Amino acid sequence: MTTPDVSRSPVTVIGLGLMGTALAAALLRDGHPTTVWNRSAGKAADVVAGGAALADSVTEAISASPLVIICVTDYDAVHALLDPEREALAGRVLVNLTTGTSTQARETAEWAAEHGIHYLDGAIMAIPPDIGTAAAMVLYSGPRSAFEPHEGTFAALGTTTYLDADHGLSALYDMALLSIMWGVLNSFLHGAALLGTAGVKATAFAPLANTMIGVVTEYVTAYAPQVDAREYPADDATIAIHLGGIDHLVHESEALGVNAELPRLAKLLVERAVADGHAGSGYAALFEQFTRN
Amino acid sequence: MTTPDVSRSPVTVIGLGLMGTALAAALLRDGHPTTVWNRSAGKAADVVAGGAALADSVTEAISASPLVIICVTDYDAVHALLDPEREALAGRVLVNLTTGTSTQARETAEWAAEHGIHYLDGAIMAIPPDIGTAAAMVLYSGPRSAFEPHEGTFAALGTTTYLDADHGLSALYDMALLSIMWGVLNSFLHGAALLGTAGVKATAFAPLANTMIGVVTEYVTAYAPQVDAREYPADDATIAIHLGGIDHLVHESEALGVNAELPRLAKLLVERAVADGHAGSGYAALFEQFTRN
Ligand SMILES: NC(=O)c1ccc[n+]([C@@H]2O[C@H](COP(=O)([O-])OP(=O)(O)OC[C@H]3O[C@@H](n4cnc5c(N)ncnc54)[C@H](OP(=O)(O)O)[C@@H]3O)[C@@H](O)[C@H]2O)c1
Ligand SMILES: NC(=O)c1ccc[n+]([C@@H]2O[C@H](COP(=O)([O-])OP(=O)(O)OC[C@H]3O[C@@H](n4cnc5c(N)ncnc54)[C@H](OP(=O)(O)O)[C@@H]3O)[C@@H](O)[C@H]2O)c1
Repeated sequence: MTTPDVSRSPVTVIGLGLMGTALAAALLRDGHPTTVWNRSAGKAADVVAGGAALADSVTEAISASPLVIICVTDYDAVHALLDPEREALAGRVLVNLTTGTSTQARETAEWAAEHGIHYLDGAIMAIPPDIGTAAAMVLYSGPRSAFEPHEGTFAALGTTTYLDADHGLSALYDMALLSIMWGVLNSFLHGAALLGTAGVKATAFAPLANTMIGVVTEYVTAYAPQVDAREYPADDATIAIHLGGIDHLVHESEALGVNAELPRLAKLLVERAVADGHAGSGYAALFEQFTRN
Repeated sequence: MTTPDVSRSPVTVIGLGLMGTALAAALLRDGHPTTVWNRSAGKAADVVAGGAALADSVTEAISASPLVIICVTDYDAVHALLDPEREALAGRVLVNLTTGTSTQARETAEWAAEHGIHYLDGAIMAIPPDIGTAAAMVLYSGPRSAFEPHEGTFAALGTTTYLDADHGLSALYDMALLSIMWGVLNSFLHGAALLGTAGVKATAFAPLANTMIGVVTEYVTAYAPQVDAREYPADDATIAIHLGGIDHLVHESEALGVNAELPRLAKLLVERAVADGHAGSGYAALFEQFTRN
């Protein structure tokens, strides 16, 4: 058990699922007097053993600290818990690290503004074991005046990135970054399935996969200014060359009995880019396909 | 113009498209006496100015070197060029760096074996400007006895990885790694489209995107042994938690008028994993979905 450091500001954590527990533990390790509350009180045992104070009610938890962090399943749970707590929350900084959409974040910000609550919406781009290390990227959006006084506390949770006053941006970045996570993982697992047909182990594939992933970060850096300019010179391979390769991937997947839905969709997007006159453009021209419903 | 180094072994390069030209240029820079041939002879001008010898025919090009590298559009072009050249190729090492499927690679290996040609199938995981640098990953498969004598020459092209005696493996790795490239790029471009609706520039998104991509390489490393064991304990988030997030991504994309096909497919795959009883498993359980047609 860690002794709270009185020089550290008190923090309240509402929600002690996998993530809330990791947040509370990191705050405790950093010496913050930490008050917690969870619907199922039993989940508090570990953090209470680590020095946290367990509140009897949400109101009591909120009243304990000028900074209240909530991390529960979804925004419905956030509103179920906090809508009755406007008075307790008024004048405090509320940081909502629950995953949601930008619309939900902006709506919650409006609700908070109506009740004098200083609201930050945030997104955690990390798994619970990484919380409290530099590997945990945590994004915040909302008024800088709510963010800055607590920046030192946020540093206890991971690598802090303040995005913008627009409360919707952390959710939007969250979605955009998670989209990348699922994209990378799905294509890795698809590749592992392809190689698995030839008896290649995923552990043999992973190092080369990660080398490739590293190479692609250079393409991302190179393509970003093309996207901003909406001009896509083929500095490397053309969309036509990519189409040939993706077509191979579809056939290889089908021939080997591996799921081909992902490459088929990739092929469709590239074919549409060709139909739009981008056969001779670089791959970044696919951006135009993603901007359309 | 570079003077050929007589201590370097002679190499022939057939095909002087973007990639063949880069290969020949890298061999010349490394001092190899280099003979080239291309259907359209005009494309040879640059490498000839760099010291390459331009052969009058494919037969003459092959006869000039014990090691023949071919890199043309596809395997149809490879066979159109080389099927008449069995006699000239007999006893030489033929390295085919043309992109194709594992079936095409294995068929070409059979054809080569019938005619006493020492065949290696290869795959270039790089763009032409990177050829000749460590950033260019080049994969080889086929008999080690054909690979080892020329390993020093291959080093001139990039970072060399010898995979396996199975000629199909470089094509299979190629497809698996390209699948990752398209997966990363598509999700980056999708994310850029999402953030673009809030006026965020792709150049602002790219550094965070690349940080995320780096984080995901750790998941790849962690999930690979789970895939090999076909056991998927949820060491981090469960498939059920991911489903909630992917559902947000679908809604966010639809609400903002951004293409939602990619997240919809991702959601479908995750829903199937849930239907298979994997709601409580880790994300790597998606592997089972990719192994099925
Ligand atoms: N785990 C990750 O890897 C990860 C990563 C990034 C972001 N996140 C996000 O973090 C948030 C929490 O995730 P988690 O992993 O901690 O989930 P979890 O382990 O399933 O915990 C969910 C938490 O929400 C509470 N809750 C749900 N509905 C409630 C309600 N109606 N009233 C009161 N409390 C309610 C639960 O309380 P009970 O204990 O009483 O059920 C529990 O504390 C989610 O938005 C998730 O997307 C998670
Ligand atoms: N460029 C890249 O970024 C990249 C990266 C990795 C792998 N690759 C692979 O490398 C290979 C070549 O790509 P590239 O970028 O060099 O393509 P490219 O610039 O389009 O060049 C194609 C080459 O193939 C020749 N060719 C095509 N059909 C032929 C035929 N029937 N007979 C004789 N020659 C024929 C062309 O000859 P002509 O000049 O006479 O038309 C030219 O030399 C492809 O398999 C590609 O997938 C390329």
